[in-house]
Amino acid sequence: MESLVCTGCRREVDGRLWQARCPECGEPLEVTAPPGGTVRDGAPLLERFANFLPARSLGLHDPAAVLTLGEGNTPLLPLETIGKRIGLPRLLVKVEGANPTGSFKDRGSVAGVQRARALGFRAVGTVSTGNMASSMAAYAARAGMRGVVLVSATIPRAKLAPIAAYNPLLIGVEGDYGRLYHLSLELGPKLGVAFVNSDDPYRVEGQKTLALELWQQLRRQVPDAVVVPVSSGGHMAALLKGFRELYALGHIERLPRLIGVPAAGCGPIAAAYRLGSTVPVPWAEVRTIAKAIANPSPPSGRRLLQAARSGAPLHFLSVTDDEIMAAYWQLSQEEGIFAQPDAAAAVAAAHKLAESGVLRPDETVVAILTGHGTKDLTPLESNAPVRLRTCSLDELPGVLESAL
Amino acid sequence: MESLVCTGCRREVDGRLWQARCPECGEPLEVTAPPGGTVRDGAPLLERFANFLPARSLGLHDPAAVLTLGEGNTPLLPLETIGKRIGLPRLLVKVEGANPTGSFKDRGSVAGVQRARALGFRAVGTVSTGNMASSMAAYAARAGMRGVVLVSATIPRAKLAPIAAYNPLLIGVEGDYGRLYHLSLELGPKLGVAFVNSDDPYRVEGQKTLALELWQQLRRQVPDAVVVPVSSGGHMAALLKGFRELYALGHIERLPRLIGVPAAGCGPIAAAYRLGSTVPVPWAEVRTIAKAIANPSPPSGRRLLQAARSGAPLHFLSVTDDEIMAAYWQLSQEEGIFAQPDAAAAVAAAHKLAESGVLRPDETVVAILTGHGTKDLTPLESNAPVRLRTCSLDELPGVLESAL
Repeated sequence: MESLVCTGCRREVDGRLWQARCPECGEPLEVTAPPGGTVRDGAPLLERFANFLPARSLGLHDPAAVLTLGEGNTPLLPLETIGKRIGLPRLLVKVEGANPTGSFKDRGSVAGVQRARALGFRAVGTVSTGNMASSMAAYAARAGMRGVVLVSATIPRAKLAPIAAYNPLLIGVEGDYGRLYHLSLELGPKLGVAFVNSDDPYRVEGQKTLALELWQQLRRQVPDAVVVPVSSGGHMAALLKGFRELYALGHIERLPRLIGVPAAGCGPIAAAYRLGSTVPVPWAEVRTIAKAIANPSPPSGRRLLQAARSGAPLHFLSVTDDEIMAAYWQLSQEEGIFAQPDAAAAVAAAHKLAESGVLRPDETVVAILTGHGTKDLTPLESNAPVRLRTCSLDELPGVLESAL
Repeated sequence: MESLVCTGCRREVDGRLWQARCPECGEPLEVTAPPGGTVRDGAPLLERFANFLPARSLGLHDPAAVLTLGEGNTPLLPLETIGKRIGLPRLLVKVEGANPTGSFKDRGSVAGVQRARALGFRAVGTVSTGNMASSMAAYAARAGMRGVVLVSATIPRAKLAPIAAYNPLLIGVEGDYGRLYHLSLELGPKLGVAFVNSDDPYRVEGQKTLALELWQQLRRQVPDAVVVPVSSGGHMAALLKGFRELYALGHIERLPRLIGVPAAGCGPIAAAYRLGSTVPVPWAEVRTIAKAIANPSPPSGRRLLQAARSGAPLHFLSVTDDEIMAAYWQLSQEEGIFAQPDAAAAVAAAHKLAESGVLRPDETVVAILTGHGTKDLTPLESNAPVRLRTCSLDELPGVLESAL
């Protein structure tokens, strides 16, 4: 069995127990580096990258026991219209909204649930208000396990439908969301529920496959820069881990720069980064339309800030809601790509970084579109940009002619 | 330039003009059989199957000009839990909801818009109330063309958001929906709008790739039976065309049986099939929760019924709303797959066909899940199956313990 290592104090921890954070220093645990080997094209995600994952811990030796809903293999598309206008002709987007439940979370959920099943758990859970909740509920159902989803009691009812579809045990908890995260990790092992939260070591292994897949899709090259929305920090930490392992295995000659993008209305990691601190700045008032990246106490924040201080090529840049919404409409109306507001934040940041010269026209830049637009229709409901003209069949020719 | 052939009277028609139906008999036109050749793995959908498509008409010679949003390559997943229970252990689902706009329509839209662009059109349109509308709006945006979407004036406002995101010209038309379909085809060429409706010859070419992709995913075999929701009939006609061409090219030794599934509350083609007629039975009152398969005057109905009479292995079976909803909940809660109600109809039909012995336990059966569950949340809103318990952080351990 692989052991786990603390990302803070580097202590080794017994990997046979379900734990996500170091019993000594409290920082997230991570899986040790993989052996490497071939990529198995055409297989489900976990099997495809089995040589780059903790295959034994995940129980990947038996292909029939590999969990899948068809996650991964998401499109990598050029943004020609936007790219040319903002001076990044080699701008690409990775459309993670094409995953089974419409977000990048599925990569992590499939690994976390696979691990929990391999350990003999009969229930898996998560603390989330959105993408991770429906993702975990779906994979729990697929694995024949009980799903447990803890949400904030103030969650709008409309957000519950895509979670409730899978019929998990759904509990709205009143009180501090950051405390709920830690309470779930404490209660889980006692109650037999494997909580696969944002920075669970096996979730991070699953999220890491995004880095591996980019390398595969770009014909064994990596981009010059990857721009990714940042909230808890787990996704960005996973990308860094994936690229670092490719580097350690000798598959790539340099790491891409990773740019983490919070909304200006909730940026604890970016604020600490600007101050030169390795502790996320506590965020009192969250104000952004990009709800999926609005975590005021990011559990993987310290890990990222420490990596940046130790020389990892990490950068952080906040974008305003106006910048996010401009990118949101450009993506759908100019490129035909409908993404969640938080996903559009990555494209908004690429725009700013091109203007300031941090990203150059000759560079290959990948913006990660973390979720599908249909997962959060708020901008289309609140701003009412839906313009419908009505007419009769007889009037239609005239109406069309004057409108075109 | 390839010519088009009438599916009714077999007359040849000039393929350089934009027309979808025979100027003589009014039946849908189709593209003549392709040359065949290799499948180009890893390329965008149209390029991947270029040897099986009218490559010259579509302008596929220049890879840089091939339109794509990453459509196709959708998961083919075993339904182990449901399959075992209903006595079809080799039941698979093709998850078309994984396409860029969440439905199978994207395969057809990419081909139709590519063809319209190759012919020099600057606007593309469609008549649709749902999946086809958002799909066409997305590909119009991607191609840098004006999108025109004609909907029924009575469309619920909630259904407009995923269409309006792409900012097409959106017109609600009062009056008969069947007449609107034909009026659009008449007005289109005059106004410079290429209407890519349900049975447009190039849309059918795009939809046909589903048959090709199944053959590819099943290692150059075809399933024994394919169960597909049926509404206008264009999708089923495209699947038949795809399998027939594979057969004509010598790639497969037999055709799979194709079973078309309407909702019992709107089944003009199935009713005609039961009566032994080749003319769809006019349907006065549409009553079903599966709105995406509720076309009361299906434009490709005659074509399918005539093919069935001439010996094509086509069958039709209606399912009730209760049967649809049972399959809908089983898919999400037992398999982790969230599909539109109309998509679940295919699984409901497979269940009935297994019971009646038409589908046998040793057969490989593929049910086509045409659209993603997030595209129509009606069942989760109207039946209110969302059960949320609330508690405080302190109460959580007790609440969890008693619920698990």
